[in-house]
Amino acid sequence: MKDLLDVLTPDQAARKLIENINLTPGLLEEVPLEEALGRIVGEDILSPEDLPGFSRSTMDGYAVQAQDTFGASEGIPGYLTVVGEVLMGEQAATKIGPGQTVKIATGGMLPPGADAVLMLEYTQEISPEMLEIVKGVGPGENTVRRGEDVEEGQVLIKRGSKLRPQDLGALSGLGITQVKVFPRPKVAVISTGDELVPPQANPGPGQIRDINSPAIGAQVKEEGGIPLYLGIVKDDYNSLKEKIQAALGQADLVVISGGSSVGTRDVTLDVIEELGNPGVLVHGVAVRPGKPTILGSVGGKAVFGLPGHPVSAMIIFDIFVSPVIRRLTGLLEDLRGHGRRVVWAKLSRNMASAAGREDHLRVALVEKEGEIWAEPILGKSGLITTMVKAHGTVKIPAVKEGLLAGELVEVILF
Amino acid sequence: MKDLLDVLTPDQAARKLIENINLTPGLLEEVPLEEALGRIVGEDILSPEDLPGFSRSTMDGYAVQAQDTFGASEGIPGYLTVVGEVLMGEQAATKIGPGQTVKIATGGMLPPGADAVLMLEYTQEISPEMLEIVKGVGPGENTVRRGEDVEEGQVLIKRGSKLRPQDLGALSGLGITQVKVFPRPKVAVISTGDELVPPQANPGPGQIRDINSPAIGAQVKEEGGIPLYLGIVKDDYNSLKEKIQAALGQADLVVISGGSSVGTRDVTLDVIEELGNPGVLVHGVAVRPGKPTILGSVGGKAVFGLPGHPVSAMIIFDIFVSPVIRRLTGLLEDLRGHGRRVVWAKLSRNMASAAGREDHLRVALVEKEGEIWAEPILGKSGLITTMVKAHGTVKIPAVKEGLLAGELVEVILF
Repeated sequence: MKDLLDVLTPDQAARKLIENINLTPGLLEEVPLEEALGRIVGEDILSPEDLPGFSRSTMDGYAVQAQDTFGASEGIPGYLTVVGEVLMGEQAATKIGPGQTVKIATGGMLPPGADAVLMLEYTQEISPEMLEIVKGVGPGENTVRRGEDVEEGQVLIKRGSKLRPQDLGALSGLGITQVKVFPRPKVAVISTGDELVPPQANPGPGQIRDINSPAIGAQVKEEGGIPLYLGIVKDDYNSLKEKIQAALGQADLVVISGGSSVGTRDVTLDVIEELGNPGVLVHGVAVRPGKPTILGSVGGKAVFGLPGHPVSAMIIFDIFVSPVIRRLTGLLEDLRGHGRRVVWAKLSRNMASAAGREDHLRVALVEKEGEIWAEPILGKSGLITTMVKAHGTVKIPAVKEGLLAGELVEVILF
Repeated sequence: MKDLLDVLTPDQAARKLIENINLTPGLLEEVPLEEALGRIVGEDILSPEDLPGFSRSTMDGYAVQAQDTFGASEGIPGYLTVVGEVLMGEQAATKIGPGQTVKIATGGMLPPGADAVLMLEYTQEISPEMLEIVKGVGPGENTVRRGEDVEEGQVLIKRGSKLRPQDLGALSGLGITQVKVFPRPKVAVISTGDELVPPQANPGPGQIRDINSPAIGAQVKEEGGIPLYLGIVKDDYNSLKEKIQAALGQADLVVISGGSSVGTRDVTLDVIEELGNPGVLVHGVAVRPGKPTILGSVGGKAVFGLPGHPVSAMIIFDIFVSPVIRRLTGLLEDLRGHGRRVVWAKLSRNMASAAGREDHLRVALVEKEGEIWAEPILGKSGLITTMVKAHGTVKIPAVKEGLLAGELVEVILF
């Protein structure tokens, strides 16, 4: 077994992989707005017109020429002539001149000549034609001018943005009902192991059902990829080689899990190495769980050999596979994508960690006397239920030799 | 206009609503595992069998009776008789007796008589029948015993849990390929306004395209609901009443946006009040943006009258509608659902806020000299692009009169 000093840190390993694969997303596809939530915009979207297309009132009141209202107060009211009313959703036809006003509701089109709206509560209709006003307004007040939301030709949404509800709202407001987005990366998911049977099968003696493919496929979905479930392959060189070649033909990256025993791991290693161009890049990473990880590249596509233990496979997916999928989605890695769902909690017990190795603890959250505590779950990495019981993970960086009970830790939630 | 002191705080308003609506999720539905990611489990799922179904090795090595290995060391090796090998995925047929061992790989079935596995690196085959060992193992070491992951009859996943990748993995491991989940709540989405046209239409003079329905529908999806887009309704009593009645017939809750002008808001109020049972519960909330919010209940179903300004509508959705949708999904509100995507940042400028009113600032994140700053976006709440430019929101609680430049604030990301 290799020593910790012989293997790369997770950061070094990830860098080596990134330098050897093609991270360019695929050709853009056009989707209707109703299906665009969460998709990544493939090109800058410019506004085709001004929004709003006309100056509008943002209050119920009277459209005025602001200068006519200057100085009006409770003590010295002003008076304006009411020359009409703006109907919602219709052209504001009546032009107002000095000393004139028209009634207007929120969202109504500002009539020609008007440059402000005086709120209803500062007015009183003395007669159908005569309005008393007790407050002045400045030019532009209580209005939104044409193009104030966005002007024709301005960049509305940048390439690489993930479409959120408000983005769909803005696009709708501009009449954009189709958007060009990056394709979702296709991820081949393969499980290896002579002992594996599919989840719907009844395992015979010595056999177990495949846990990793469904779990990893779901992780792919959460990152915005499309899982291609290529099933279970036996631990032999030719079967695995054929399967990986088929996977490379249809997917943007390949994730193989299993092969936790030395023999089967060697088969995965040998196949990736023989496919070459360049082949295996990393074998073994200073991380727990997940040390026997294999990172490779074949013709610009990443090929991952994850450990067979389900916990290790999922955590290694999170460390190495997720960032590659995210890059292939075209997502702009700015501050927008910075946040993860996290909870700060106090660690319930001391946890040792070998220096030079990055540890990822599974923890369950519990509330005690109003405080949130993170309780490490200590089960073996072969036990998927330790992940089911966990609310998230806590990272112990390689430079630390452990964490102390009571220490405040950041729990990254699943 | 009502004074701040006359209106309820967001917490008081939410409580009043919650007490007057039915929050029981609908009848369970069964979905295949491939479609179950993110769904909420409708009943406790018990394990139908032991996982694993047989005791297994977690290492490559030799299956032994632990007591035969006690005391073995580099200086004083022990010797065992090799009586066979466990083949992966097959019954371990050879029983081992005292002084005997069989070769086994990771995941292999522990043979009868064995209670531990000695790792390969501490062994040497002297002859095909004779194994030298230089280390002892304790009983159970390097094995997973039958049922150690989960035992038959144990609760595997609790009612109300949101299904994550590891949950799907565990269910697959147990051969459970269908799960009973709570139905997604159906949310009727209605926009009101004589000036509104659908996004695909060309607005005439004084008309604008509907921004709110697409934005709110997407918010519904993000919370796990199904939006029913019921379109645009004119600002008149009968049309709105008919539309809301139709909505109540097919949806679990109703969200109306628009009616920002006094007249149209009154129509919404009147209709909800006339439908009664009990009708309008809250009119006006001490929050900015979103003061003119209406919360109502008709026959146990929540009816929301959101402001027409798109920013206000979205923020009020987040405060009042989201929690109701989440409750109706059946999601267990434990610590698991506690986290949101957040970033801590320094506020770039002083922001005043009226005491007694809860303010929700829109902020953009910028990085300056390695620090993350939150810059308030000051545009009017009628401008949807202020939400497009924003990365998230910062809450100023009602008890505070503002925030200071440089203060550390929690930004809840969209």
